[in-house]
Amino acid sequence: MSATRPPTPVNGAELLRNTLLDCGISVCFANPGTSEMHFVAALDHEPRMRCVLGLQENVVTGAADGYGRMSGHPAATLLHLGPGLANGLANLHNARRARTPIVNVVGDHASTHLALDAPLTTDIESLARPMSDAVRRVTDPDDVQAATLEVYRAARDRPGVATLILPADASWGGLSEQHCRAPPAAPCTAAASAQVDAVAQAVARHARSGARIGLLLGGKALRRPALPVAGRIAEALGARLLCEPLSGRLERGAGTVAVEKIPYPIVKAVECLATLDVLVLVGCKAPVGFFAYPGLPGKLCGDSCEILTLSAAADDAAIALAHLQNGLGIRPGPVRCIAFAPPAAPVDGATLTPQDVCQRIAAGLPEGAILCDEALTSMAVLYAKTRAAAAHDYLQNTGGAIGIGPPLAIGAALACPDRKVVNVQADGSAMYTIQALWTQARERLNILTIILSNRSYAILHHEMRGVGIDSPGENSRRMLDLVDPALDFAQIARGLGVEAVSARTPREFAAAYARGLAASAPFLIDAVLCT
Amino acid sequence: MSATRPPTPVNGAELLRNTLLDCGISVCFANPGTSEMHFVAALDHEPRMRCVLGLQENVVTGAADGYGRMSGHPAATLLHLGPGLANGLANLHNARRARTPIVNVVGDHASTHLALDAPLTTDIESLARPMSDAVRRVTDPDDVQAATLEVYRAARDRPGVATLILPADASWGGLSEQHCRAPPAAPCTAAASAQVDAVAQAVARHARSGARIGLLLGGKALRRPALPVAGRIAEALGARLLCEPLSGRLERGAGTVAVEKIPYPIVKAVECLATLDVLVLVGCKAPVGFFAYPGLPGKLCGDSCEILTLSAAADDAAIALAHLQNGLGIRPGPVRCIAFAPPAAPVDGATLTPQDVCQRIAAGLPEGAILCDEALTSMAVLYAKTRAAAAHDYLQNTGGAIGIGPPLAIGAALACPDRKVVNVQADGSAMYTIQALWTQARERLNILTIILSNRSYAILHHEMRGVGIDSPGENSRRMLDLVDPALDFAQIARGLGVEAVSARTPREFAAAYARGLAASAPFLIDAVLCT
Repeated sequence: MSATRPPTPVNGAELLRNTLLDCGISVCFANPGTSEMHFVAALDHEPRMRCVLGLQENVVTGAADGYGRMSGHPAATLLHLGPGLANGLANLHNARRARTPIVNVVGDHASTHLALDAPLTTDIESLARPMSDAVRRVTDPDDVQAATLEVYRAARDRPGVATLILPADASWGGLSEQHCRAPPAAPCTAAASAQVDAVAQAVARHARSGARIGLLLGGKALRRPALPVAGRIAEALGARLLCEPLSGRLERGAGTVAVEKIPYPIVKAVECLATLDVLVLVGCKAPVGFFAYPGLPGKLCGDSCEILTLSAAADDAAIALAHLQNGLGIRPGPVRCIAFAPPAAPVDGATLTPQDVCQRIAAGLPEGAILCDEALTSMAVLYAKTRAAAAHDYLQNTGGAIGIGPPLAIGAALACPDRKVVNVQADGSAMYTIQALWTQARERLNILTIILSNRSYAILHHEMRGVGIDSPGENSRRMLDLVDPALDFAQIARGLGVEAVSARTPREFAAAYARGLAASAPFLIDAVLCT
Repeated sequence: MSATRPPTPVNGAELLRNTLLDCGISVCFANPGTSEMHFVAALDHEPRMRCVLGLQENVVTGAADGYGRMSGHPAATLLHLGPGLANGLANLHNARRARTPIVNVVGDHASTHLALDAPLTTDIESLARPMSDAVRRVTDPDDVQAATLEVYRAARDRPGVATLILPADASWGGLSEQHCRAPPAAPCTAAASAQVDAVAQAVARHARSGARIGLLLGGKALRRPALPVAGRIAEALGARLLCEPLSGRLERGAGTVAVEKIPYPIVKAVECLATLDVLVLVGCKAPVGFFAYPGLPGKLCGDSCEILTLSAAADDAAIALAHLQNGLGIRPGPVRCIAFAPPAAPVDGATLTPQDVCQRIAAGLPEGAILCDEALTSMAVLYAKTRAAAAHDYLQNTGGAIGIGPPLAIGAALACPDRKVVNVQADGSAMYTIQALWTQARERLNILTIILSNRSYAILHHEMRGVGIDSPGENSRRMLDLVDPALDFAQIARGLGVEAVSARTPREFAAAYARGLAASAPFLIDAVLCT
């Protein structure tokens, strides 16, 4: 075996391994089964592929999401047949909504076995399609390279989730064709410049007429190098910079350009946008309500607001913004940034509130941290408190499928081993993918998990009030509360190999937080909130 | 509110509640979200519906499977949109393969909201179809009753998984029609008697000619009243009684008719059936290999074996067997049963083996226990050792999607509150749905969980040897071993509210088992095996 090239493949599984390596994919998040054994064998002695086991597939796919968001490059997954894919679909859904590149490899029975309807047989395409931007089934061993390159390009260029279905006989079957290194990849797509020019002219016209303009940023527009460009344009136009309630990745904190987040509650979201005459979409689509409510609108912008699409979600927003700056005749230059001004953190008090916890997190957040926010009910508090903290990346649950935080942190930590990852995590959602803690321990990842234990699906209690039920009865409480028994997250974490403590006062939390920040291995704090 | 009839419904959600109650559905396994809030509200003050929360949807669906297998009647589920359904698909797959009746209720966005492609929007039908025997979307509030009855009948009569998609506006919308109690349900289907008569004649002819006959039993044929009838027929014909490697529910142990299980390993399975001239299918289909392997057959019966279908998997096998007995002119009468002869259980030894554990389980198994077997690598040992234990029901993972054991035990315990449930559980599979322990604690269920901790996906190590890899390298070990760190199941269980101990010797295990059997609340033993 050469140190720089994979060995010559003898079957489809080895060709898949070589093609993934040729595409620069070096991490495979996996939970394989019998039908994937030949691919496992092909990876066995290949040190250039880091294989990371998740104890349930939603850990696997959520980790691939975190990795793709922070590295900008797809990881591969390896899932076992329809049920393995099904277990990972929820976090693939979140990844698709975040437009994270993922090469999602799903094994299937040998083609000849499918007609027999063996117990594990399912319609994998039907399962994959709703959570994938592309789905491709390998037809035979010689098709492996073409299929893998197709899927890789789909994942990288849209970007998004591209699923490769690998039948066992395509994996174990011998190759008849010669297969050399994969051809070089095509460049990323950008919005057509004609479209950008037309939007630039319209925006310039609106600005001259004194219209109230907002730029809604998504994708790459929310980080360097695009975000300062967006800031410069907004200053020149007197426009507002906005982002959606949930974004895949934001650069925030001291030294970054301030972006106003559209609130999550539907009534506040509509109010936030009501004063706009023009909304320019940069790497996203027109904003809509997360859920429908009787008598409330679905679209967040009123009919009087003109919507202009500078670049769609699949386009490269950074390229589009540079074009727009140019088209508007705005010179590059310094832009107003947030000054470092973290909140003071409390130490007194007999009980712990979400405010206490979020202030302390913000006050001590290390420069360059990656904050994985699945705080849900406490999301607004966390977001507000961290505004002027040290510079950090902020990753959110974009698709609304809960249980993303702990696996997302795995992927982010693997992509950025020199940065601290802080996962602020609602308790109910944590229980969806609690298995992720074991992978954090095994890979010795620099992740601090903070569980906000309010011991209920608190956001649903809020929704119940919206339905007109102020005092829930027995059955509602049984479906929305996480008590009787209370979850002891510190004990669960230790059982999974992660050091952990509980905190019930601001002082205890401050000590625990300092300890968690100082650790270089995974650490968990169960912040038991006063509710 | 009347004590015997639900209140008059004012919206679709309340009509759904009433229709489910009218169908005799009294348990709802749930993990709801915002789009299901009106249905939660409708259930809130309805004591006739027991709402059981699962902390992840695969717990919800697996519990519904256990309930349906043991009660013979469907439970309802309540899942939140596409991602909630996705999380529960793996155990719905197992339920479908076990032909368990389940009314699977999945909320969706309001119809008007779907076109906006809000973050949680997915193609629910595409996700549901592969794991459902029927899928029906409610069109509007007035359609709720018709749709629910359709789905209920599909679940009960095939039997199988029937999915009802409930848009939020069909739930919250007012009713324009008068809705009275649901009409009485149609009877279960049986195989056409003409088909049974033809099979009876063929079987009689084969028996006269000295052919070697096997009866392959599935569904209701594996328990009373059908199983003794099958035993009587087999004795009269000199035929073998067989069952598939994995069955949804078997009556086993002392006082039951012995059934020979087709081995799981493909080579042994083919050998087991090689001597048959005729195989009669009773409530199942022709046997096939679980996986395909290079050069090995997919169908387990050779071409020289004639296959006769007495009744298909969707038919009532009990009715078909009674017809067959009659058609063959066999009189009802006593049948040979297994005598009570549990194995002696070891107490000496410095380490614990699967044999030690399974012998002890068999020796002490209480009469009428329900044994939930997800022992995987140790399945064959457990099955052999429990053959002549006290009479019990034996539930297995029929679909091969791992993580069924702990939730299956929940459903079985709720359906049969007076019986002890013993879940013998592989460690890797336990981690898929470990959240189930919390529901066991909350519902105070009489479940003893025994984790067989061999600290690997041992069955996959076996498969690796089949691929020709005898000494796995770094990447295989990282994907197939559950070490570094070891999982401490006792600690995890206590964190989830379940009393637990570890056992590392036969003596420790004997003491723990006695304690677990004596408990009436959930109890877990982490049996740390010598590997």
